[in-house]
Amino acid sequence: MSGNTFGVLYCVTSFGESHGPAYGGVVDGCPPGLALAGADLQKELDRRKPGTSRHVTQRRESDAVEILSGVYDGRTTGTAIGFLVRNEDARAKDYAAIAEKFRPGHADFTYTQKYGFRDPRGGGRASARETVVRVAAGAIAKKWLKERYGVVIRGYLAELGATKIPFQSWDAVDSNPFFAANTGMAAQLEKQMDALRDAGDSCGARVNVVAEGVPAGWGEPVYGRLDADIAAAMMSINAVKGVEIGAGFASIEQKGSEHGDEMTPQGFLSNNNGGVLGGISTGQAVTVSLALKPTSSIRLPRRTIDLAGRAASIETTGRHDPCVGIRATPIAEAMLACVLMDHALRHRAQCGDVEPPLDLGGDAQRQGRARKP
Amino acid sequence: MSGNTFGVLYCVTSFGESHGPAYGGVVDGCPPGLALAGADLQKELDRRKPGTSRHVTQRRESDAVEILSGVYDGRTTGTAIGFLVRNEDARAKDYAAIAEKFRPGHADFTYTQKYGFRDPRGGGRASARETVVRVAAGAIAKKWLKERYGVVIRGYLAELGATKIPFQSWDAVDSNPFFAANTGMAAQLEKQMDALRDAGDSCGARVNVVAEGVPAGWGEPVYGRLDADIAAAMMSINAVKGVEIGAGFASIEQKGSEHGDEMTPQGFLSNNNGGVLGGISTGQAVTVSLALKPTSSIRLPRRTIDLAGRAASIETTGRHDPCVGIRATPIAEAMLACVLMDHALRHRAQCGDVEPPLDLGGDAQRQGRARKP
Amino acid sequence: MSGNTFGVLYCVTSFGESHGPAYGGVVDGCPPGLALAGADLQKELDRRKPGTSRHVTQRRESDAVEILSGVYDGRTTGTAIGFLVRNEDARAKDYAAIAEKFRPGHADFTYTQKYGFRDPRGGGRASARETVVRVAAGAIAKKWLKERYGVVIRGYLAELGATKIPFQSWDAVDSNPFFAANTGMAAQLEKQMDALRDAGDSCGARVNVVAEGVPAGWGEPVYGRLDADIAAAMMSINAVKGVEIGAGFASIEQKGSEHGDEMTPQGFLSNNNGGVLGGISTGQAVTVSLALKPTSSIRLPRRTIDLAGRAASIETTGRHDPCVGIRATPIAEAMLACVLMDHALRHRAQCGDVEPPLDLGGDAQRQGRARKP
Amino acid sequence: MSGNTFGVLYCVTSFGESHGPAYGGVVDGCPPGLALAGADLQKELDRRKPGTSRHVTQRRESDAVEILSGVYDGRTTGTAIGFLVRNEDARAKDYAAIAEKFRPGHADFTYTQKYGFRDPRGGGRASARETVVRVAAGAIAKKWLKERYGVVIRGYLAELGATKIPFQSWDAVDSNPFFAANTGMAAQLEKQMDALRDAGDSCGARVNVVAEGVPAGWGEPVYGRLDADIAAAMMSINAVKGVEIGAGFASIEQKGSEHGDEMTPQGFLSNNNGGVLGGISTGQAVTVSLALKPTSSIRLPRRTIDLAGRAASIETTGRHDPCVGIRATPIAEAMLACVLMDHALRHRAQCGDVEPPLDLGGDAQRQGRARKP
Repeated sequence: MSGNTFGVLYCVTSFGESHGPAYGGVVDGCPPGLALAGADLQKELDRRKPGTSRHVTQRRESDAVEILSGVYDGRTTGTAIGFLVRNEDARAKDYAAIAEKFRPGHADFTYTQKYGFRDPRGGGRASARETVVRVAAGAIAKKWLKERYGVVIRGYLAELGATKIPFQSWDAVDSNPFFAANTGMAAQLEKQMDALRDAGDSCGARVNVVAEGVPAGWGEPVYGRLDADIAAAMMSINAVKGVEIGAGFASIEQKGSEHGDEMTPQGFLSNNNGGVLGGISTGQAVTVSLALKPTSSIRLPRRTIDLAGRAASIETTGRHDPCVGIRATPIAEAMLACVLMDHALRHRAQCGDVEPPLDLGGDAQRQGRARKP
Repeated sequence: MSGNTFGVLYCVTSFGESHGPAYGGVVDGCPPGLALAGADLQKELDRRKPGTSRHVTQRRESDAVEILSGVYDGRTTGTAIGFLVRNEDARAKDYAAIAEKFRPGHADFTYTQKYGFRDPRGGGRASARETVVRVAAGAIAKKWLKERYGVVIRGYLAELGATKIPFQSWDAVDSNPFFAANTGMAAQLEKQMDALRDAGDSCGARVNVVAEGVPAGWGEPVYGRLDADIAAAMMSINAVKGVEIGAGFASIEQKGSEHGDEMTPQGFLSNNNGGVLGGISTGQAVTVSLALKPTSSIRLPRRTIDLAGRAASIETTGRHDPCVGIRATPIAEAMLACVLMDHALRHRAQCGDVEPPLDLGGDAQRQGRARKP
Repeated sequence: MSGNTFGVLYCVTSFGESHGPAYGGVVDGCPPGLALAGADLQKELDRRKPGTSRHVTQRRESDAVEILSGVYDGRTTGTAIGFLVRNEDARAKDYAAIAEKFRPGHADFTYTQKYGFRDPRGGGRASARETVVRVAAGAIAKKWLKERYGVVIRGYLAELGATKIPFQSWDAVDSNPFFAANTGMAAQLEKQMDALRDAGDSCGARVNVVAEGVPAGWGEPVYGRLDADIAAAMMSINAVKGVEIGAGFASIEQKGSEHGDEMTPQGFLSNNNGGVLGGISTGQAVTVSLALKPTSSIRLPRRTIDLAGRAASIETTGRHDPCVGIRATPIAEAMLACVLMDHALRHRAQCGDVEPPLDLGGDAQRQGRARKP
Repeated sequence: MSGNTFGVLYCVTSFGESHGPAYGGVVDGCPPGLALAGADLQKELDRRKPGTSRHVTQRRESDAVEILSGVYDGRTTGTAIGFLVRNEDARAKDYAAIAEKFRPGHADFTYTQKYGFRDPRGGGRASARETVVRVAAGAIAKKWLKERYGVVIRGYLAELGATKIPFQSWDAVDSNPFFAANTGMAAQLEKQMDALRDAGDSCGARVNVVAEGVPAGWGEPVYGRLDADIAAAMMSINAVKGVEIGAGFASIEQKGSEHGDEMTPQGFLSNNNGGVLGGISTGQAVTVSLALKPTSSIRLPRRTIDLAGRAASIETTGRHDPCVGIRATPIAEAMLACVLMDHALRHRAQCGDVEPPLDLGGDAQRQGRARKP
């Protein structure tokens, strides 16, 4: 299977470039009968949209999505759902200057070496704008998971550069332009971003994502593990350099007597495992944490080479997010939703006749808390 | 594709349980003409083998591998390579006591909920002993990558619990039972492990893996990224809870002016990206770091429930690694080898006619250093 | 992998319904550097287009294709090629009458039972109009196979109902509205079709497709055989009920001494095997033959049931091909092209370093004749 | 996915060569809880076994199967089922004579050109002995389909060379060494085979396979059609050159008014479509017919070339089936079972919540008759 499709049963195929006519996607495998309209996708796309605050790229895109197939009379038909998002504010000329040089931290060099040449307009296929497809596909998965299993998937910005952002409440997330789960830190974060922009530099970020209500039993040993598929999905997001499930890297310093989540008839007593044991969901919250590298496009001059291999210097102007991590929250939620939906379908394919022997009290299990809050 | 096969073109299929008659695997897609004998697999299996020091499980297994197909006259034929490793020291009775209870941190509960019941003998399919298959498959990939492209894949234990193990040299790795790239710390690590064993507890670990000599251009945007596939492969290893590529989570606090690897006509000046940009290899070393959780089987009593959902207490005796991370080094190397080989084949399928426009000096690129050394 | 994508490395994903806004597709895995424009796809789409003669459906569609991604500066970039064909002459109202009944021979009943309901507008997803996607994807494959390997893929109508159409020359195929490889039979075929249309009935057809210039070595034992993948691709075309490779069903009555193609230093002496032995191409022409059932939509009254399961009668008016086989020739060519391209890529992935030991004289091999001419 | 694995959710992976140590397979995706023992596989393997009559190869193989994993306490656990069949009567020396020449009709030439060299011992990987894996995997699928859905899969030899063998009853099939569904023709068939053997020649065959009890709704539009997957599975069997579903090639001469299966509240009135419409099962019997070419290994001298490309003559002695079609019946049944099981799982993954709106009377549907009886 080639690189622009992912998923075994809930399959997402993506196409499009930053400054081409459009992005589009095909979602295949969605169960029939799900109430679905363009507005369901639009709602999530609007959360990811550029230009919503001064802290993200100022590119003007309405990101209006058109559903082209797979929905009839307001419900999914079970056939392939095609959708399209036209690019509106493509400015190919902005990129003339950089077409001749490789931008450090970008995929310019690797695409050129792999394919022999590249579409230099705004990163072409490597642009993070491709994530519109992920968010649209994730919106469908989120809706189905919520309606069918009561699964709720939410994320937030946990660190902005060196600044930790304590989790206060989910309600806070949509009240600020940073997806911070914290109402009191917006001013500080704004100041931090303003200073960064003035300096012509960028910073990294940590995003946490949590899925609550996931039933026990999703995931396949030994390679098709739920956590393995989540890791791939997250690492495939532009700029992600690290993925943790549950206690993640903190596990290294834990003792077994501390890490191993004890159980009672009411459920698990902790969630170091992040809702996954042996690659299979436990019924607790699935907790994932991502590291996003700082935006590669910065105004500060950088050493590089040109297409002929000669030494050069580059300053990347144009419209860029000073911290790509800020807009990553809805994207990470979408990827988690797609993976979970894929595994929900895979699980009921093989184990549709199994009656899980134990009921630990849905409540206890579902309250398994996310790691970072 | 079901959960016990991975890879698109270099495909590994695995079967077997800890206390069943045997483990086995099928490697499909290996190019023809590779000189291969059982000894090539055995060499790597022996590095992973239990019972090699007092710091790992005392289970006695020769892990002798038999190649059953795909090799004729000492060379791979291009057809499926089947191999078998018989279990010799299976002691199903050891597990009678735990058959009725769920061991915290293990997959006992999730397998039971998913499948309705489970094979309780030593973790059944969830046992880390399944990694013999990975190591055997990885041995083939390592050999081919080395002979065909000069790729060298090595790993080492970078942290044992709270103890950091500074990288000194690759030569040190095979000189001690910990895969430490450091000759001076063995005594300290032994003491640490002895204390842990006496306490009936366990600890986590960090393993670093590095592939040098990977040509630029391997990996497929946008979902089939090289780093995404590496993340999945690593997260699918038992006990892994986190994966980093390049600077990993340290990226969060980096500035763009610090993280973005500058280039000169002689190559990259740093390797924060871990040898992957935009999902495609840069020609630098591919650097990966893993967090392994502490062994779940410990002697200390833990709260749990039994098959009927009643409160219970469990102490896991038997033969277990007090730190599963110790034997993870050859496993992580194997998984990295399999992913790289898969992408080597995928790359030449699509881009076999491409002449990479730039030559940054193989040396400079290959010297791109691993992150942790 | 879900049902709307096919191919391992040359992957085609399709979406769209007969009376929805558009059809579209994504071709993933195409090598970079292929000169490609919309006109390359359009040329093939125009061969398949409705309304080109009075013997096919009178639906008016320009079938104008728009390439949305994957091509830059006139060449494929190696990334996903998205394309769109808008529906122009959708007349949902034509189908109001049949929405309440299941048309015999159609997928109305099976879609309803599978998905719980169906899009009744012109067959929805089951419409043969979906083949625009196949033809567009096949056009890319044809072009690449021709330029890279000199492979030429052509087809023709070999039987129209009970009428055999002797092969005269390839040149004849585009000189008549039937894709007959015969210049003298057009008048007779026209008369036959007119009579059929007057009778309100339909007929079946046989289409032969031949790929010349295929190198020896494409195809993978034992399940991923070239002929197995061709069989699937052909049987996936609407209305196809049978597939033959080489001598096909005539093999049953052949003796081994007659069927087994003898070899000389100049090449094979016959081609009963249709260019495939052991699932791998021989270097001869790959010859395929298809049976297409008669169009299910006919004016004659038929017994059926309605959505409530009650007995009913149905007469299908509207715009239909009286023989769907007529327009199947470019579709079958396209499917053969996609499969061959997929295997070309798969072959060079695994066997890119193999130098085929024998050279039977390209000419002799390439002259391996198709079965039916 | 590489060539030695097939299926999306019910995955079969195969390895082994005719004169290597063993054949083996891995069945992945089987639902947990199915009662399964080696005897279930053995029963089907014994039907396919060589040496059961003088009309098939006299190679002496017990074909004893060992299950190595995936079954605990007599039931499938849901994890990978590994199994092994050791080769016992391998006689590599029989093949010394043919190692230097390409046998007409065999894969010798194509394997050599693809891989650069080949395992010449009895056809190596291309040997029809590989079908032991298929039959074992099919035995599991058959058992599950029968127990879970009441699906019954049976096949018979319908033509032996030019001799048609009228269908009398299913009971007859196991009463003769030909899998003829006819008790009166055994003597004639034996005479025909004896004459063929005396002449040193071979003949082709037709095998029909029927699955009764398949519910409506299995199969995925538009490429993952049930009939497309059946076609691939059948064409992947050694020696198969043609596949038909339902009326197959007879459809060409049918009128639409004759072919389109009418419906009544009691079910379909005919089954020209072979139980599949639009790629989805109708609830009628799924009927498949195969053409098998004559055995390529014959005693009569044939023109060929040697490894150096020089003209040569070859006579194939050794132990061969004079008609490979005779033993193909259990193999074709097995492949049909695997495909149906895969689609049963795929269907309930996506459509597990759908209540099929109509009930045509299971009886009426299930009595949908096979084509050839």
